[in-house]
Amino acid sequence: MQDIPMAPPEWQVSEWLNTATPPTLAGLRGQVVVVHAFQMLCPGCVAHGLPQARRIAQVFAGRDVAVLGLHTVFEHHAVMTPAALRVFLQEYRITFPVGIDRPGDPGPLPCTMQAYGLEGTPTLLVFDRSGQLCLRQLGQLDDMAVGGLIGELLALPA
Amino acid sequence: MQDIPMAPPEWQVSEWLNTATPPTLAGLRGQVVVVHAFQMLCPGCVAHGLPQARRIAQVFAGRDVAVLGLHTVFEHHAVMTPAALRVFLQEYRITFPVGIDRPGDPGPLPCTMQAYGLEGTPTLLVFDRSGQLCLRQLGQLDDMAVGGLIGELLALPA
Amino acid sequence: MQDIPMAPPEWQVSEWLNTATPPTLAGLRGQVVVVHAFQMLCPGCVAHGLPQARRIAQVFAGRDVAVLGLHTVFEHHAVMTPAALRVFLQEYRITFPVGIDRPGDPGPLPCTMQAYGLEGTPTLLVFDRSGQLCLRQLGQLDDMAVGGLIGELLALPA
Amino acid sequence: MQDIPMAPPEWQVSEWLNTATPPTLAGLRGQVVVVHAFQMLCPGCVAHGLPQARRIAQVFAGRDVAVLGLHTVFEHHAVMTPAALRVFLQEYRITFPVGIDRPGDPGPLPCTMQAYGLEGTPTLLVFDRSGQLCLRQLGQLDDMAVGGLIGELLALPA
Repeated sequence: MQDIPMAPPEWQVSEWLNTATPPTLAGLRGQVVVVHAFQMLCPGCVAHGLPQARRIAQVFAGRDVAVLGLHTVFEHHAVMTPAALRVFLQEYRITFPVGIDRPGDPGPLPCTMQAYGLEGTPTLLVFDRSGQLCLRQLGQLDDMAVGGLIGELLALPA
Repeated sequence: MQDIPMAPPEWQVSEWLNTATPPTLAGLRGQVVVVHAFQMLCPGCVAHGLPQARRIAQVFAGRDVAVLGLHTVFEHHAVMTPAALRVFLQEYRITFPVGIDRPGDPGPLPCTMQAYGLEGTPTLLVFDRSGQLCLRQLGQLDDMAVGGLIGELLALPA
Repeated sequence: MQDIPMAPPEWQVSEWLNTATPPTLAGLRGQVVVVHAFQMLCPGCVAHGLPQARRIAQVFAGRDVAVLGLHTVFEHHAVMTPAALRVFLQEYRITFPVGIDRPGDPGPLPCTMQAYGLEGTPTLLVFDRSGQLCLRQLGQLDDMAVGGLIGELLALPA
Repeated sequence: MQDIPMAPPEWQVSEWLNTATPPTLAGLRGQVVVVHAFQMLCPGCVAHGLPQARRIAQVFAGRDVAVLGLHTVFEHHAVMTPAALRVFLQEYRITFPVGIDRPGDPGPLPCTMQAYGLEGTPTLLVFDRSGQLCLRQLGQLDDMAVGGLIGELLALPA
């Protein structure tokens, strides 16, 4: 991960769903932060990534772990709208906070996706308690490995 | 299935995707016809029904079996639009013909869904070679049972 | 399947478990007969073949379908004994009849396995109502295809 | 886990497979130790526990994690013999060390199973770097939770 910025930038979100208080990377300092970057019409996100994010939230409930979704729309913008995402989250019963990555200007990549150099969806981002980025994984990573990383980061001081 | 019309009505479709020639129940006489009624944002359809429909199409390829999708939008009409469905089919690589059930007037149920008394999605409809409706199943039915029914209907004369 | 005998031979079984009356191919004339040839320490049999045989028995219960297991031990004879098989069937709650393929002389292939030219486990054998062998499949075959075949054979006269 | 001995006893093993040097709890001090207690004819062990143990070994390869199997035969002793276990490990391609829990006198529970108060199989035991028992879980525990625990223990000093 030599090309990941040492001090990862704040995410840029145009709207948060499932939460009244917009989470920030700075505000979550002290917690392990897991961000699942997805698109609602990406099959790998729906079949693998989002269920995994839900399991992370369940297994580490009550621990210092924040699980967030980030809707990084980089294609088919016309149909993966905020309104469509809202229905999607409701139908799939996703209850953790989901931010909509701010559309890029000129696009098509949204801002946070660009800033973090994400190459597609699903991508899993994991930050340690001090806010450093420890994992940026495109595609599938199995639960044992993800759980192991989160466990290690939980045990380390901020 | 005592409440299923003896002579099932033609489906009412406002637009067909994945096919240049709109299939009709009458035109498919002589074949076993499998219709998977779904909504693109219905988790059970995405996880179970559509993959099963794809397996039906694969296993019975080259046989007298027609597999069709029917997008029966009865909720969240504003986001499950034809444009969104088109992206969905592309992303999920669904290649069999999919019809968009004609919006109801007044709604919210679309026309074919109403005519067949469908109670939700996913629903599997199976017609025999003579066009009679043999199965109208809401929810999941396992592959062994679905395969068995299609096999039996294939072996029966029209 | 050009090398399958036109009139398949009776199976040769040294002992039947889960049944008081030894089933014979001749005696099952009129029914579709499914034989799952397996070894109790064969991972593919345990993970795939036996659960599939159980689903066949469940889905086609009450129909003219006979589901049988055949323990075709061709390796590790010293540990895959009748006593071990009995425990295995109990632990895995397999309730359909299971025959122990008669040990070969000289071996190592047991008699029915030799007579049918089986090349390993799991192998699925399917006979039609007239006792003809219609399928001899080594390895995995998915439920949709197996169900389809059984359905077709059920619909055909003996 | 109030009834787990503070200083867990050494396991009592009559024979080790897959290793030339019998591992001991004392000798593994400094590592996280995962012991999967199983029986070769226990369906839950075969379907869930052993594949999970294999994933632990794969994901944490190169780290301070020792994965061991313990064959805790408490029923059907006559057929779950060392010879049968040897075939089982070969067929299932299990390559981590597996110890055979010393038969109890009078039995039927083997010695380590008794000493640790295990109530059945599969049971997962996890020890921290200092040799303390941190988990004794009967039945299934999902990968995210197991991975999380191992990760945490890895990050803690001995």
